[in-house]
Amino acid sequence: MNRNLPVNADRIAEDIDALAKITEPDHPWTRRAFSPLFLEGRAYIEARMKAAGLETRIDAAGNLIGRSAGTKPGLGTIMVGSHSDTVPDGGRFDGIAGVISALEVARALKDQGITLEHDLEIIDFLAEEVSIFGVSCVGSRGMTGQLPEAWLARKSGERDLAQGIFGVGGDPETLLAQRRPDLKGFLELHIEQGPVLQNEKKDIGIVTAIAGITRIEVIVEGRADHAGTTPMDARADALVAASQLVLDIRDAAAERAKTPGHFAATVGEFRIEPNAANVVPSKVVLLIDGRAEIRSDMEAFCKWLDAHVIKLAIAHGVMINSPNRVSDNYPTPGNPSLLKTLENACETVGAKHRRMASGAGHDTAWIAKVAPAAMIFVPCKDGRSHSADEWAKNDDIALGAAVLFAAVREMDQTLEREAEDGAHTR
Amino acid sequence: MNRNLPVNADRIAEDIDALAKITEPDHPWTRRAFSPLFLEGRAYIEARMKAAGLETRIDAAGNLIGRSAGTKPGLGTIMVGSHSDTVPDGGRFDGIAGVISALEVARALKDQGITLEHDLEIIDFLAEEVSIFGVSCVGSRGMTGQLPEAWLARKSGERDLAQGIFGVGGDPETLLAQRRPDLKGFLELHIEQGPVLQNEKKDIGIVTAIAGITRIEVIVEGRADHAGTTPMDARADALVAASQLVLDIRDAAAERAKTPGHFAATVGEFRIEPNAANVVPSKVVLLIDGRAEIRSDMEAFCKWLDAHVIKLAIAHGVMINSPNRVSDNYPTPGNPSLLKTLENACETVGAKHRRMASGAGHDTAWIAKVAPAAMIFVPCKDGRSHSADEWAKNDDIALGAAVLFAAVREMDQTLEREAEDGAHTR
Repeated sequence: MNRNLPVNADRIAEDIDALAKITEPDHPWTRRAFSPLFLEGRAYIEARMKAAGLETRIDAAGNLIGRSAGTKPGLGTIMVGSHSDTVPDGGRFDGIAGVISALEVARALKDQGITLEHDLEIIDFLAEEVSIFGVSCVGSRGMTGQLPEAWLARKSGERDLAQGIFGVGGDPETLLAQRRPDLKGFLELHIEQGPVLQNEKKDIGIVTAIAGITRIEVIVEGRADHAGTTPMDARADALVAASQLVLDIRDAAAERAKTPGHFAATVGEFRIEPNAANVVPSKVVLLIDGRAEIRSDMEAFCKWLDAHVIKLAIAHGVMINSPNRVSDNYPTPGNPSLLKTLENACETVGAKHRRMASGAGHDTAWIAKVAPAAMIFVPCKDGRSHSADEWAKNDDIALGAAVLFAAVREMDQTLEREAEDGAHTR
Repeated sequence: MNRNLPVNADRIAEDIDALAKITEPDHPWTRRAFSPLFLEGRAYIEARMKAAGLETRIDAAGNLIGRSAGTKPGLGTIMVGSHSDTVPDGGRFDGIAGVISALEVARALKDQGITLEHDLEIIDFLAEEVSIFGVSCVGSRGMTGQLPEAWLARKSGERDLAQGIFGVGGDPETLLAQRRPDLKGFLELHIEQGPVLQNEKKDIGIVTAIAGITRIEVIVEGRADHAGTTPMDARADALVAASQLVLDIRDAAAERAKTPGHFAATVGEFRIEPNAANVVPSKVVLLIDGRAEIRSDMEAFCKWLDAHVIKLAIAHGVMINSPNRVSDNYPTPGNPSLLKTLENACETVGAKHRRMASGAGHDTAWIAKVAPAAMIFVPCKDGRSHSADEWAKNDDIALGAAVLFAAVREMDQTLEREAEDGAHTR
């Protein structure tokens, strides 16, 4: 890279490579939250935070935080970060790139002798990925009073989530009372996990919104008949009906995706019963994962689906339940001022940028509910992620870190300030 | 029933009810081959065979046989029977109705003081259903030298099939050498396992052929992408492609089923990978169960499938293997003379009959490869079988037993005979 960046690309590469080595050897790259490997990775990150002059702590929600006090106490906190946990068999960059880029911002500020007026915190959120306790974004929800109390009793083997949080250094006793009123602005860098930036040869995606995620279960019930003896015209084949539904969902989602605003719908889970060679399938349970940048798109899709399954059931002589929304989260828009700040930062460092939605969920979505927050994407190879094939160029990550650096400096001057009486308490 | 039948309907009901009680209590009706319950069921059948004056034995292949010597030694054997094992959670009549009807033929002959010229054997074949060893028609194949030697080593837990056969009283040492050159004619009664006789108000189906069974594995491979971030038009969704294939197979089979000769094709096994809510499915493995009364129908279907998957793969941007015939059995026609004998028998007892194919496999298919064999169907409720809902009316079974009785008497006079020099040895 020929650009003269305010950040050190080699340092970023060194840290990402070092963390990549902390993995289950036979499952690169696996460093799941709550595991010994996860704690090993965190020990590395904490050491690097300390080397960068940051004061480290684990908060009640189990987040690892490196802090640099600002010159104007009580002005509030600018936070930058992401997560260091991975899914199984994936995630060399997913999360890590954001943690290390944030750390690099702190280092670059130190190198240049800059102390912000705001406090600066670099964060590694606990368990952004779906964890062994079956839930995700534990740290970002927990830090902001958004973790459902019932989750603390969720089990993984002998342990419950409360014990898991305690095991990484958090405090489940005070967790539910956690709030961060001091938080004045949050930024996260993440790999895109899609092919758009690569295909359009853009350096940075400015994330306008994190899509809402709606998961819908559909159950198709037919009749288990003998596959050899039951005439083709006397069947109620649940798999045939469900196959038509899969195609119709794909078509409906593809149509909606052509209109403004990110939209996707995927049948990702699909199982049939009895799943026996010589029996006409009697039942299919399928789970639709829907993502919408614009809430009304999801409402329209669900309305279409509710009506469509009735038609399908009649046409195929099967029963289909009323589609059940097992979870339903609204889209989270990025903070408009921060989006502008990030665009300014791209211009400052000479990064080609575009606005785009995030189809994936991120910690930023939870922080955005309580404080101004926004995120940027950097390109990744062929859009692959959650896979051993996941790859991002170090130069692209470094350019993203430089955007963060420039944005943090602008935020330090432009964020809405507490009354500068120092009366704010955390 | 007002007919004056040569068989005793009450005795049939008594035996079928008694055997229905020998089941796993929580899984009616389950009496799987090689289980203690199976042996308990056989003990009941053997006692009833003895009570009917039959000499009982277990042959090397583990079949339970009740024998009544004919008046002309060396003339050969007429055999009638079916199987007493069940699938899990099903089979109150499947197999049993045929064993008890055969036994009732022997009892009715005894009642009427008739001794056949031929030897008569009533048989309960071992393990007609897919057994714990993963294979079916063990007894009918074994008795006729058609059991693959490699099967004897197939494992179920600690046991292999050879030990399983030994455990029911068979002789795995001499099994592979078994032949039955004395067998001059075989008949089997079975429930239809389809709705045709019920819908057409027929009493008896004369089975013209047992359909060939062809099992074909298809593997669709797409790409595992993030379901939230990957645009709808940038996916290689294996489930979408496989869903189209399921519909196309159904349509192709339904078209072929409209032409003469039974034809069916069913996708009965279907599993997707990674089967995760937020991942575009990367792989589907599906198994097609094809049944054809006419071999050229199956060849044409396979030829269509081979060409079709290539088109589908291109259209959906996925890879599909060349469909793999994991098993491929030809149709087995019923013996033409025996079909005529059975029709005569229907006329004799006043049963409304039609010719039809069997879509399901049966022991008769294996016996037919070495001796004249044929089978009849009796109606069952709504075509249900391999299910707790399986039901057949006792009067319908009794009428079928009467057809067997009349047919056996005609066979005794009309079957091709050995030279009557008594030199024939078994």
